Amino acid sequence: MQVKSTLGDSIAGFSTTELIAKKRDGEELPPAEIGRLVEGFVSGEITDYQMSAFAMAVYFQGMTPSETTALTLAMRDSGEVVDLSGIQGIKVDKHSTGGVGDKISICLAPLVAACGVPLPMISGRGLGHTGGTLDKLEAIPGFHVALSTDAYVRQIHQIGCALIGQTADIVPADKRLYALRDVTATVESIPLIVSSILSKKLAAGVDALVLDVKVGRGAFMKTLEDARRLARLLVQVGTLAGKNISAVLTDMDAPLGNAVGNALETREAFEVLLGRGPEDVRELTLVLGVEMLLLGNVESSEARARKRLEQALVRGRAATKMEEIIKAQHGDPRVVREHDRLPAAPHLIEVTSTQSGYVTRLDAFEVGQCSVALGAGRNQIDDEVDPAVGIELKKHVGDRVEVGTSLAVLHVRDCTHAAKTLNRIQTAYTIGTHRNASQTRVLEYVRE
Amino acid sequence: MQVKSTLGDSIAGFSTTELIAKKRDGEELPPAEIGRLVEGFVSGEITDYQMSAFAMAVYFQGMTPSETTALTLAMRDSGEVVDLSGIQGIKVDKHSTGGVGDKISICLAPLVAACGVPLPMISGRGLGHTGGTLDKLEAIPGFHVALSTDAYVRQIHQIGCALIGQTADIVPADKRLYALRDVTATVESIPLIVSSILSKKLAAGVDALVLDVKVGRGAFMKTLEDARRLARLLVQVGTLAGKNISAVLTDMDAPLGNAVGNALETREAFEVLLGRGPEDVRELTLVLGVEMLLLGNVESSEARARKRLEQALVRGRAATKMEEIIKAQHGDPRVVREHDRLPAAPHLIEVTSTQSGYVTRLDAFEVGQCSVALGAGRNQIDDEVDPAVGIELKKHVGDRVEVGTSLAVLHVRDCTHAAKTLNRIQTAYTIGTHRNASQTRVLEYVRE
Repeated sequence: MQVKSTLGDSIAGFSTTELIAKKRDGEELPPAEIGRLVEGFVSGEITDYQMSAFAMAVYFQGMTPSETTALTLAMRDSGEVVDLSGIQGIKVDKHSTGGVGDKISICLAPLVAACGVPLPMISGRGLGHTGGTLDKLEAIPGFHVALSTDAYVRQIHQIGCALIGQTADIVPADKRLYALRDVTATVESIPLIVSSILSKKLAAGVDALVLDVKVGRGAFMKTLEDARRLARLLVQVGTLAGKNISAVLTDMDAPLGNAVGNALETREAFEVLLGRGPEDVRELTLVLGVEMLLLGNVESSEARARKRLEQALVRGRAATKMEEIIKAQHGDPRVVREHDRLPAAPHLIEVTSTQSGYVTRLDAFEVGQCSVALGAGRNQIDDEVDPAVGIELKKHVGDRVEVGTSLAVLHVRDCTHAAKTLNRIQTAYTIGTHRNASQTRVLEYVRE
Repeated sequence: MQVKSTLGDSIAGFSTTELIAKKRDGEELPPAEIGRLVEGFVSGEITDYQMSAFAMAVYFQGMTPSETTALTLAMRDSGEVVDLSGIQGIKVDKHSTGGVGDKISICLAPLVAACGVPLPMISGRGLGHTGGTLDKLEAIPGFHVALSTDAYVRQIHQIGCALIGQTADIVPADKRLYALRDVTATVESIPLIVSSILSKKLAAGVDALVLDVKVGRGAFMKTLEDARRLARLLVQVGTLAGKNISAVLTDMDAPLGNAVGNALETREAFEVLLGRGPEDVRELTLVLGVEMLLLGNVESSEARARKRLEQALVRGRAATKMEEIIKAQHGDPRVVREHDRLPAAPHLIEVTSTQSGYVTRLDAFEVGQCSVALGAGRNQIDDEVDPAVGIELKKHVGDRVEVGTSLAVLHVRDCTHAAKTLNRIQTAYTIGTHRNASQTRVLEYVRE
């Protein structure tokens, strides 16, 4: 037939085609071959079409912890690796796998920094139904998320925390690979997700990491089983890479807190820093904060760590730390206490219930999509976001509602398309006759 | 996390990324989507990296007969489709999945044409350990394999047979896709193999097709099970595409006949046309010829078809038809009877046995690789082949040998590297103490 034996190309005596075939056939690849794959991909010697075929083979065959670690380290080494060893203490970061209404980083980072843990936090932007911390931070007038590596290191040294975006020099292999995975249906591969997350954290210079792995309708992982697999591999690979790492599986069936949208979420995070805010946001902040204080070795028990965090909130040290951070990054620190300095949408539209009963479900994915439709998020990577628009949720799972009860308020720039979003929010609420037991956000811990 | 929902690109409202994801998840794709995939790939709207990810997803998830048919037809329609309807009779071709020493086309085509079946035979070149009919035909001095479509149609009309290479205008989608599969470890996918083979045959204008699906060490399909799967899908898809089609599974553990190498094999095919030649080559030629005469509807029973073929050999009509074909394609027709007009290698090197006993195995893959090493084949698609060099096998499975018995003769251009090949041929022969039952070439028939 025309189809003949594969002869393959070779890079320094190693054939990319054979490497793809080995992964396709379920063999474990030695670290050196994975390293050469990443190097070749970044240098352009290994083509996009070979890399996408490899990624699809990994989708089906998976990768062992050892292979995933090799991939993570090779990706880390594809660009700048920040050296934070000059800063005293164990540098701890938190990473969330992304959800709807997830403003935790904005209250958690200053809170943990205020408790003495140096915190180099590198965040991302929103895409699809999930928001991104950088977009929320940029709702603060004047706030800069793009710092040079020097400024980033200096700021952590001086005030214990910096909240920045990924620089172009960090893990270029991930940028290329992620762009390729996004258009080749290879995003949903646990080892590829793990290496994408961890390579960037390792390159940013962290010593320890807490992972908030979200599960449910509004999360990337829809089932507890998938979330567990992701969390376990993250912890295994992080540990193999020599870092202290733990993961918390948290529920993302319903949005977190009341606010969805950039300025609205930033404001809610400030409420938590001021000792107020929705209970679920405050609780998850404390849970993740406890993990960070333990990993950062500033407290030795959960109880003591929790107490220290609560006191930082009560005594205002967390809010003050946020003001320091905002000031250092050229923003207006008064927003922390004066929320009307944040951008506000021109129109507020009330969404009311058409049924009476109990809220039995609130679909985070739908709410996230509505927020994007209002302009708060992105459908394409280069879309602009509107900091002011979003959704305020008034009712949650377990709440009693009557016909006409206010369910939510839309914060809208342009009224033309709001009617469609209004209806969509109504249907994002499921109203039933019986009251569900309200679910806890924290589902499981995964620790080494 | 940085990894967000897939937003996808879209071509006329259809997202390539979603299509890849559907195949990845094991869904059956509708024919229209497969059609747009092929169109987009040929036009460049669908990138190589998306196509290679798709091919890898097909490798793992397979394709139904209906999907494979849609792919085959879309590929056929990516270029010129030759119209042979002006030529009377059912146009029948034969296709082999490739082996070592497989010169069947060269004796089969004139034989079947001499029996009144119009035969548009489009062949390929050798790559890797398998040879190609075009290379063997080009060992004939002056012979042209590149005819225009007009000349090809005219020749079938006038003398009932043309032996040509694929023109650039036929199935450009296959050329691009095959080049991509070759470097992305996606060659070994049965539905992709089927669509590659059948799209070209359909574009060449055949009405019916006999497939010689080879099984064993020297074949692409190493196991009977894989060969059966390939043969069945070929027959199913051919039938769905409206063609009469049957397949014969044949053994390719040992090389076919005595000759491996271009001129050597062409000569052996001429021997068969003259009523001589090795028994296995003659027998397989007759078996495939019977299928072709039945599909071509010139005989209604196997017995009558076989008799007609045998008479065409005995009465010299097959050899005369070969002379007509060679003349029509600008070659020297005297080679059919005067074999010393074929190119000959300057050096003959005898390979002798170092053991005594019975030949229990002769490894076709190794013999094929040795032939390539002597210069008869290609490691890269643009390598030149030497028509004169090759291997003459003197002993076969079941034969008795003593120490010093001649096993084979190498026909060599350059003696420098011959010693290595000599040793390799010695080890391609397994000598044991017991005589194996000699195996039949024809294993199974697959018919609709």
